[in-house]
Amino acid sequence: MRLTEFTDHALRLLMYLGSCHGRMATIDEVACQYGISRNHLAKVVNELAADGVIVAVRGRCGGIRLERDPRDIRMGEIVRRTEPNFHMAQCFAGDTAACPFGAACRLRQSLAQATEAYLAELNRLSLADLLPASVPVSHTKEFLS
Amino acid sequence: MRLTEFTDHALRLLMYLGSCHGRMATIDEVACQYGISRNHLAKVVNELAADGVIVAVRGRCGGIRLERDPRDIRMGEIVRRTEPNFHMAQCFAGDTAACPFGAACRLRQSLAQATEAYLAELNRLSLADLLPASVPVSHTKEFLS
Repeated sequence: MRLTEFTDHALRLLMYLGSCHGRMATIDEVACQYGISRNHLAKVVNELAADGVIVAVRGRCGGIRLERDPRDIRMGEIVRRTEPNFHMAQCFAGDTAACPFGAACRLRQSLAQATEAYLAELNRLSLADLLPASVPVSHTKEFLS
Repeated sequence: MRLTEFTDHALRLLMYLGSCHGRMATIDEVACQYGISRNHLAKVVNELAADGVIVAVRGRCGGIRLERDPRDIRMGEIVRRTEPNFHMAQCFAGDTAACPFGAACRLRQSLAQATEAYLAELNRLSLADLLPASVPVSHTKEFLS
């Protein structure tokens, strides 16, 4: 059971931006810090900016920062937005005509309820809850000069 | 967020066997009914048999059936057994040395707690809870002659 790379990048991007305490960061900076693809990260930035979770400012003095207070960003809602689907079983995505249970199958509903429990547990946390108390040292070394 | 194909096959195999009410089924029969790979299903059968969830009897009059009462098979425990890992974020599986949060990262623990909530919700259900009240018609048509 895994989240997509897209969600993984989104969560880590938000944690990074949350630890910047309002300072503008850049996509290159975040990609470099985590050792992840700049292009993949750019797609995540676009989606989170479109959703109003982060602000992306273009240009030489531009960058990215959180749009909202980390205490107001619920982790379950982020995962719900960034996961492309919650088809927990193979049969949900394909042709179910061959299934001997057909419409009587209770698997789909059961897995959907479990997914809601997963997201509800994550929604107990805000981004602020995930952040270490202090700014990571590596921020100051390489990018704040 | 998806379960592996292995878990998907395991859940559907158990539902099928549960609906047989003690009758021996065969791997070919189940694979045919769901339109899934016989070889993949055979691996699932081996693992569930090794775990004592089903009985696999070799030979001409052999087959597979549940070892335990469907009311005693908890779905969360099945998923916990069949999923190869619960590395919900990419950084958990790889080298985390580059992570600017390091040991202070709270993401892993948060996702682990959400995964436990997911499994706990599934554990509220037994295999018996997932089964339709009546035996699927298709069983009787093709395989009970």
